[in-house]
Amino acid sequence: MIIHIERFNYEKDDFFYHILKNEYMKALSFKDNKLKLAEIEKPHRKNEALIRVVKSGICNTDLEIVRGYAGFEGTIGHEFVGVVEEATDSPELVGKRVVGEINAGCGTCDRCRKGDSRHCENRTVLGIIGRDGCHAEFLNLPTRNLFEVPDEVSDEQAVFAEPLAAAYGITEQVEILPEMQVAVVGDGKLGILCAWSLALKSGNLKLIGKHRNKLDTAEQSGDVEGILLDDAKKMKREFDVVVEASGAESGFETALDLLKPRGKLVLKSTFSGKPTWEAWRVVVDEITIVGSRCGLFSPALDLLKEGKINVETLISDEFPLSDGIKAMEKAGQKNVMKVLLSMTN
Amino acid sequence: MIIHIERFNYEKDDFFYHILKNEYMKALSFKDNKLKLAEIEKPHRKNEALIRVVKSGICNTDLEIVRGYAGFEGTIGHEFVGVVEEATDSPELVGKRVVGEINAGCGTCDRCRKGDSRHCENRTVLGIIGRDGCHAEFLNLPTRNLFEVPDEVSDEQAVFAEPLAAAYGITEQVEILPEMQVAVVGDGKLGILCAWSLALKSGNLKLIGKHRNKLDTAEQSGDVEGILLDDAKKMKREFDVVVEASGAESGFETALDLLKPRGKLVLKSTFSGKPTWEAWRVVVDEITIVGSRCGLFSPALDLLKEGKINVETLISDEFPLSDGIKAMEKAGQKNVMKVLLSMTN
Repeated sequence: MIIHIERFNYEKDDFFYHILKNEYMKALSFKDNKLKLAEIEKPHRKNEALIRVVKSGICNTDLEIVRGYAGFEGTIGHEFVGVVEEATDSPELVGKRVVGEINAGCGTCDRCRKGDSRHCENRTVLGIIGRDGCHAEFLNLPTRNLFEVPDEVSDEQAVFAEPLAAAYGITEQVEILPEMQVAVVGDGKLGILCAWSLALKSGNLKLIGKHRNKLDTAEQSGDVEGILLDDAKKMKREFDVVVEASGAESGFETALDLLKPRGKLVLKSTFSGKPTWEAWRVVVDEITIVGSRCGLFSPALDLLKEGKINVETLISDEFPLSDGIKAMEKAGQKNVMKVLLSMTN
Repeated sequence: MIIHIERFNYEKDDFFYHILKNEYMKALSFKDNKLKLAEIEKPHRKNEALIRVVKSGICNTDLEIVRGYAGFEGTIGHEFVGVVEEATDSPELVGKRVVGEINAGCGTCDRCRKGDSRHCENRTVLGIIGRDGCHAEFLNLPTRNLFEVPDEVSDEQAVFAEPLAAAYGITEQVEILPEMQVAVVGDGKLGILCAWSLALKSGNLKLIGKHRNKLDTAEQSGDVEGILLDDAKKMKREFDVVVEASGAESGFETALDLLKPRGKLVLKSTFSGKPTWEAWRVVVDEITIVGSRCGLFSPALDLLKEGKINVETLISDEFPLSDGIKAMEKAGQKNVMKVLLSMTN
């Protein structure tokens, strides 16, 4: 085979190079409305780093993609830690343990030049828009998207860099002061990460959810008071900031009920479709709604390094990639928090 | 009659005092789902000023109340200029020409003590919640709600203090910088006041509406470019701030379409009921939605005094209070802007 490659002068970025070199890998792939563990070519995007994935984490967005949300086809997954195998433009990265910003901008538009590729109109997003994701043995990302993981941070912790960046990213958008009353609605893993993150800023953090066991988990590892949804219904108009992280349409109304006039409602989770809302309440109470998606990686890695957020307590299970389908099923079950995939066993 | 009063020792705040003194007045009253010009008692709220109304302005909210919005019953109207006739706690106000903040707080709650009675939970609102309004010969308001009108401001201009305060109030909530691209959706009187107000801050103000004649009116008296809705549909993702002032559900989606990622959507008009919205777009583009209702009177009076906003061009017609029903009908017609009521002819 190698003789063939040399004779026909195939380049490394060429499609056939990988076929002829027989460079295949396992990947959890969603195509034609079906999720399967596929054997596909190793990724080979021009001018990007090649990363060998060590562990990845299953996010609710993965579950939603498999339900047809976002119309994505390809390898799913966007939370990972891995080791750089190739990086032609930054050879010093080779061998380094990294996590990666999932939005890859065009690099040339106004927004990218201002440093915010998270909102580039032509961006691809790892495992979500136009770019194969991380539930696979290898992935590509531009080297500018990569962040070296400090030695103090374990692989298990590093997998949380992306969702923690998203949670802590709220503080990029909304000022949280110590005396503020803050609530997070939703006791899933995103809600708990939001609660822990904001509890670093506010001394009065309530996490509101339906599951006593999840609330207990949150209380054990953060300066958070867990409150059952039914009890929270008595707390109308008590909060300066409420984060909706339940992903349920009803979560939005709950959040509105909890807010003081002129309060801020952070929309952290997406509900697909077109829910209804009482827009007049937002006007009368002069509420501010802040849509919040991705955050910066560096502050999240700092939090992990300094041990300020104990993400490991959120891990429910770990599966080898070869059991990826089973892992996805598990992640969709009630009372299950973060499910990891491991590519090394 | 006066003998009766003295004999039975009725107090001035007493209900019977007014009946016995035969102190009745004309008022545009909405009751049992019917609007009528009624002969009712002169208002006599304890510890409040009595104001003789000189002119009042019909707002779209008045039209909505008459359609059943807000469940209000009583004298409608909240935009006025008048002269103080009685003010036991501030006698220096008697004879002064005033406009009035329409939200009357309880005066004792946390929010009132912090100076924001606009969000007091027990507030009454002139002609909107639990308090008779200004389409009448007289009204009551606490003296702390009153603002003296500068001599430079005519009665016709002063009537606009309330809606102009609401429009300019956007700048209390959202920073508008000269280089920002700003759009206002809705070419009604509120939209035009918003456009003129924000054009004082941004050098790039587009007013978007369906009526060329209204856009022309706006262009003639403000640094505003009027754009027909169909043409604006090509301007996707061009604006930093978009104000929804059309009151139409479709205006919200138009506003979302126009916004850059991380842009701000100011909800200025209420749509009643429960409209649908694509909440996921707000999250993905990290949009901020700012509900905006009432503004401060002092800055609005300053703008009128300095001649920075030419509100008179928005007056379509004026009727005597006795023709109030006709005036309301006129205000509800297409291509009609502000309709005033005059209590002095």
